[in-house]
Amino acid sequence: MVTSLEERPISAAVIKRLPRYYRYLQDLQNENMERISSEELSRRMGVTASQIRQDLNNFGGFGQQGYGYNVEYLKNEIGKILGLNKTHNMIIIGGGNLGKALAGYANFESRGFVVKGIFDANPDLVGKRIRDIRVMAMENLECFLEENEIAIATLAIPKQDAQHVAEQLYAAGIRAIWNFAHVDLDLPRDIYVENVNLIESLMQLSYRLNKKH
Amino acid sequence: MVTSLEERPISAAVIKRLPRYYRYLQDLQNENMERISSEELSRRMGVTASQIRQDLNNFGGFGQQGYGYNVEYLKNEIGKILGLNKTHNMIIIGGGNLGKALAGYANFESRGFVVKGIFDANPDLVGKRIRDIRVMAMENLECFLEENEIAIATLAIPKQDAQHVAEQLYAAGIRAIWNFAHVDLDLPRDIYVENVNLIESLMQLSYRLNKKH
Repeated sequence: MVTSLEERPISAAVIKRLPRYYRYLQDLQNENMERISSEELSRRMGVTASQIRQDLNNFGGFGQQGYGYNVEYLKNEIGKILGLNKTHNMIIIGGGNLGKALAGYANFESRGFVVKGIFDANPDLVGKRIRDIRVMAMENLECFLEENEIAIATLAIPKQDAQHVAEQLYAAGIRAIWNFAHVDLDLPRDIYVENVNLIESLMQLSYRLNKKH
Repeated sequence: MVTSLEERPISAAVIKRLPRYYRYLQDLQNENMERISSEELSRRMGVTASQIRQDLNNFGGFGQQGYGYNVEYLKNEIGKILGLNKTHNMIIIGGGNLGKALAGYANFESRGFVVKGIFDANPDLVGKRIRDIRVMAMENLECFLEENEIAIATLAIPKQDAQHVAEQLYAAGIRAIWNFAHVDLDLPRDIYVENVNLIESLMQLSYRLNKKH
């Protein structure tokens, strides 16, 4: 199953929907539900049963016609596809309010995303601790990345600094950036950037509010 | 132009792209650029010129064949469509790390999103100030919403509390929720919910990292 998955390109839209399946299956598991039909799952998730079957067929199916899905098995398989059966070490660049909030988000750790270090250019922050995590100087970034196996770097810094820092991260071998800076990073194709643009998300709301009037 | 916009349904994908146009146009304005061709804008934004023309045609065009776009005019028009020419008062439910980070994000205010109050169920937080904003008890929420014109409510609370609080907000007249809780809210159709699911965003990165191996 996993082999065929690696060979076929899966659309970004499907990938974006997988975490939601994972979340619903986890909730079902917490309710001690063992099996679920695609119809019942569709009712709960508010998507069509055919969409569910199509999405899961991308990864080889997981269901038996007429028997529905085994909740735990399906959850675990989707978890594996999403890489949630592994630990991913992270660093956060920027120890301001946002960096602090992200460092303090215990939910991440329970999914295997572990913050190993926070870096900040402000000498007043360096040496302080956020939760149990030390804030280090930017000068130590390269050395830290050499000594620690870090998979994901989070950018919680102003947009004017983001491109430069992202290039530094790339040069140090980082291949996944979680970008909260309000800018499109220009980087080689072999690094994956996931943007979280909070102000653009707010603008979606103001568009809807504006349209109503 | 605005009239035709109200009549035709615009796809969510186009709406999601508008803030990015706005951002690039703002950058161009900061560079004192007065006009830009769709070809040059396309090069900068990494999308096709035909996509740009199609997107903007949804709102009546804005460009003159052969003359390109007037940067300031186009920025202002997109700003109006997005409702950025108005002030939107917000409240934040949840004064924890995330609520604090969102309250402290000065960028929001510069776009017209002004945080007027923070609410928390924890009595230890009530009465404190985050930036200049008072943290109030949840008991005061209804009364506060009656006395203040609030457009957007931000949910920065755990998932188990989110549905209940969202219903309270709806009953008090709120019609736009910015939801950071890790749950799909079940609400009437006339309230607009914009979800920011940080853990699902992280899972997109772990999927990519997992696929590489």
